[in-house]
Amino acid sequence: MPNGAHALIRTLADAGVDTCFTNPGTSEIHLVAALDSVPEMRAVLTLFEGVATGAADGYARMAGRPAATLLHLGPGLGYGVANLHNARRAKVPVVSIVGDHATFHAGYDPPLQSDIETVAHNVSSWVRTSRSAQELARDAVDAVAAATGPPGQVATLIVPADVSWREGAEPLAPPQQPDPPPASPEAIEAVAGTLRRGGRTGILLGGRALHGRGLMAAARISAATGARLFAERSTPRLERGAGLPAVERLAYWPELAAKQLDGLEQLVLVDAKPPVSWFAYPGAPSSLAPPGCQVRELSPPSSDVLRSLEALVEALGAAAAEPALQSASRPEPPEGPLTAQKACQAIGAILPEGAIISDEAITSAVALPASTAGGPRHDWLTLTGGAIGQGLPVAVGAAIACPERPVLALEADGSAQYTIQSLWTMAREQLDVTVVIFNNRGYGILDAELGRLDEPSVGPKARALLTLGGPDVDFVELGTGYGVASQRVETAEELTGALQAAIADPGPHLIEAILPAVGRAE
Amino acid sequence: MPNGAHALIRTLADAGVDTCFTNPGTSEIHLVAALDSVPEMRAVLTLFEGVATGAADGYARMAGRPAATLLHLGPGLGYGVANLHNARRAKVPVVSIVGDHATFHAGYDPPLQSDIETVAHNVSSWVRTSRSAQELARDAVDAVAAATGPPGQVATLIVPADVSWREGAEPLAPPQQPDPPPASPEAIEAVAGTLRRGGRTGILLGGRALHGRGLMAAARISAATGARLFAERSTPRLERGAGLPAVERLAYWPELAAKQLDGLEQLVLVDAKPPVSWFAYPGAPSSLAPPGCQVRELSPPSSDVLRSLEALVEALGAAAAEPALQSASRPEPPEGPLTAQKACQAIGAILPEGAIISDEAITSAVALPASTAGGPRHDWLTLTGGAIGQGLPVAVGAAIACPERPVLALEADGSAQYTIQSLWTMAREQLDVTVVIFNNRGYGILDAELGRLDEPSVGPKARALLTLGGPDVDFVELGTGYGVASQRVETAEELTGALQAAIADPGPHLIEAILPAVGRAE
Repeated sequence: MPNGAHALIRTLADAGVDTCFTNPGTSEIHLVAALDSVPEMRAVLTLFEGVATGAADGYARMAGRPAATLLHLGPGLGYGVANLHNARRAKVPVVSIVGDHATFHAGYDPPLQSDIETVAHNVSSWVRTSRSAQELARDAVDAVAAATGPPGQVATLIVPADVSWREGAEPLAPPQQPDPPPASPEAIEAVAGTLRRGGRTGILLGGRALHGRGLMAAARISAATGARLFAERSTPRLERGAGLPAVERLAYWPELAAKQLDGLEQLVLVDAKPPVSWFAYPGAPSSLAPPGCQVRELSPPSSDVLRSLEALVEALGAAAAEPALQSASRPEPPEGPLTAQKACQAIGAILPEGAIISDEAITSAVALPASTAGGPRHDWLTLTGGAIGQGLPVAVGAAIACPERPVLALEADGSAQYTIQSLWTMAREQLDVTVVIFNNRGYGILDAELGRLDEPSVGPKARALLTLGGPDVDFVELGTGYGVASQRVETAEELTGALQAAIADPGPHLIEAILPAVGRAE
Repeated sequence: MPNGAHALIRTLADAGVDTCFTNPGTSEIHLVAALDSVPEMRAVLTLFEGVATGAADGYARMAGRPAATLLHLGPGLGYGVANLHNARRAKVPVVSIVGDHATFHAGYDPPLQSDIETVAHNVSSWVRTSRSAQELARDAVDAVAAATGPPGQVATLIVPADVSWREGAEPLAPPQQPDPPPASPEAIEAVAGTLRRGGRTGILLGGRALHGRGLMAAARISAATGARLFAERSTPRLERGAGLPAVERLAYWPELAAKQLDGLEQLVLVDAKPPVSWFAYPGAPSSLAPPGCQVRELSPPSSDVLRSLEALVEALGAAAAEPALQSASRPEPPEGPLTAQKACQAIGAILPEGAIISDEAITSAVALPASTAGGPRHDWLTLTGGAIGQGLPVAVGAAIACPERPVLALEADGSAQYTIQSLWTMAREQLDVTVVIFNNRGYGILDAELGRLDEPSVGPKARALLTLGGPDVDFVELGTGYGVASQRVETAEELTGALQAAIADPGPHLIEAILPAVGRAE
């Protein structure tokens, strides 16, 4: 009979969880040792846990099923929390496995002992500590089911070392899960009534409604009823480009998002939440929908959103409606000294067919939606939970889920630093990722937030915390250090050329695009 | 009347907390804006939260008082958890300030909303969310008192954005704290009786007993009673070198540590815990003291350990005892191709007077204790909680606490990666830190753990997770990218020369020492 570790990995693979992003330690050594006995399980090493958890997020966004993460006790999970937070907000499935001390050892309070469950509860509503090797396979099956949802979630399974090493375990085949139900006919009819009534109506799409079948159904509903389509600010996976329905994504700044929604009398939520400001400001409302706007949810989070949307299409007689589709257009390749806007244009000019864009360029990416809207079909993966350090790991996971598609990771210089070690995993796995660092040598978003304050005492100490100079980070050195072919560009022509060369050459590349510096006179 | 943010920073500075390690975000922007109004407050920017928390640990170890950390909501705290775990295990004071959404905003569940307190409880027993600007200064005073202890701890103060921005707050002067009591006379006498009784006796020193007055008192007790001195494996700050008492530090591997303690009939704990194995192994005991050994604590964690130790010196009549002191000796500079042992010898050969060694070289540092024992006086700061990624940030904090002392950060290549962004802060603050990367291109400790397993199926997939090749990380590129003068050495002579040059030149330097690779035939 195999030990717990073998049974766990076999059970995960049989349940379709065949990729594991990890940074293991001693308490996980039996799980590491068991990997070779399950040939289907791919283990991807990361140098830092935040890379592992963000990669699992990116993988799930594109594969539509969970990867596992394998982390080392409470501190390892801690390093991974920020990107698990983003995965939670993306409502994607992740099976988060955390090794722990042997059950009999924990009571001695050894140095690495801590309350792992407290940390896990920040990102998981499903948390279980496995109690024996015999129960581990059942725990794994339950974790996969909990992660898969709907809604997808981070399911945390804590595995004490002796639960891994003890023998007498058996793998378990995954049980047939019942299909989640669509919204009730009454709920569908209520939303259909709202849409038939007319008036200024918006449909706010999130999560699973932003790509594939969901997006097409929403576009038919829009065409049949005149309701406008919006996307949540956080888009785990927004499919767009020429020939696809165009959806207007809500702006980051609350006054701009409120303007987009201004005048709406009704707002239907499809796998989305009532729109709120990312941060609060003195005297400003948190809610973004106009006062008096009736907000109604199509389908609860635990339901089958796609079937609900398609039932709504039926109810509205919209199956034959011709959805408005984006026409093809590309910006001209820009010229001259580089700015953030020109960098976005250059990306629009070269965007390859079927690209996956992992976008964490923050303030530098303001022009990106317009510059890529009419380009070839692509998926746009954005920051879902606001915890920066997501973009590079999400690119790792997306590239592993979709090895045939080119991945573009658009990164701010500030955000890139939290999980910069992602570059090494890109090189080791020879992932086809082109990383563009929008280097404005500062935290542009914080510079903007500071500018919004009515605060007389802002001085050099405060400003120094928003600028990343003294020394400037050299991303070409960092990329080279991690084994990624890297170059710096300072003009729009150089950027376009570098992008074309990177995309033509498989494997990872890094392009450091030098932009005007935040908060500095140049 | 100032706003909450001004009152908080003024109150912290007045309480002696005048250094803040931070990576702030929008919910902390009012705290950032308030910094310039308190000239004594030094704000040190880090690119990643794990650097900020580890720096606060290193600062507290050397300054003997807390620094503040300022982090961004639950995800920012998450990134900082691993090094706060190490600080908790070091029993050093840290005032951990975490910005949160405005109180009225949290209920809307915006993207960055999460249960911050759950994460904080992993590392803090003192956790408070401030409720109003008026209460914030009181909360800060309480946080500093809780952090200071004894024992030192991580005190977490969560500050909602509107608590920062609202006016009507007043700074508060720190109240006089009562001195903590020493152990009771009965407890002192009981330990004195143990020591007078004779027999094979050990004294296990931890925390505050490992440097300064505490160490000298322990050495007198040892000289008067014949009890042997041991140090815990985790030494937040061990003072050592020629002319100081020599203390034998417990080994990492449990069978070696048990051998050190073998035969002891009595073990007195001074600011230390009963010795336990770091990890459990099948069939092996967790406890390291020999069976039947009587273990007795001198003084509870909340007491004044130094006064307790000095009372014990009195009770034993040991005030005039001549402690055994380490004689001066240095290894010869080594020659030839570099090995881990020769690298440790080179460090012993060049160790400057008054150095602070932040040691996270793990398996490569096995020879370090012997090679530095007879060198000039130095402080040795080691990994306290087992959460790797501590060494570089601790060096940052130690260098800021002790700007006149040279700092040596001895790092394993694997461990360096978790908080590699520390290098940028070293460059920005022009800290006098010499970083040595012991680059064996693998996780040496995991390779050793895998070798201990009785596991037939270990194969290439498992082994690949312990090796860091394909590509090898180039630390010279990484150091240069972060603005630190960096070079690679491959022979012992080159290492010695590079160390001498780095120490002679103020400011940060990085030396990548190429060692034989873990798990590879070379």
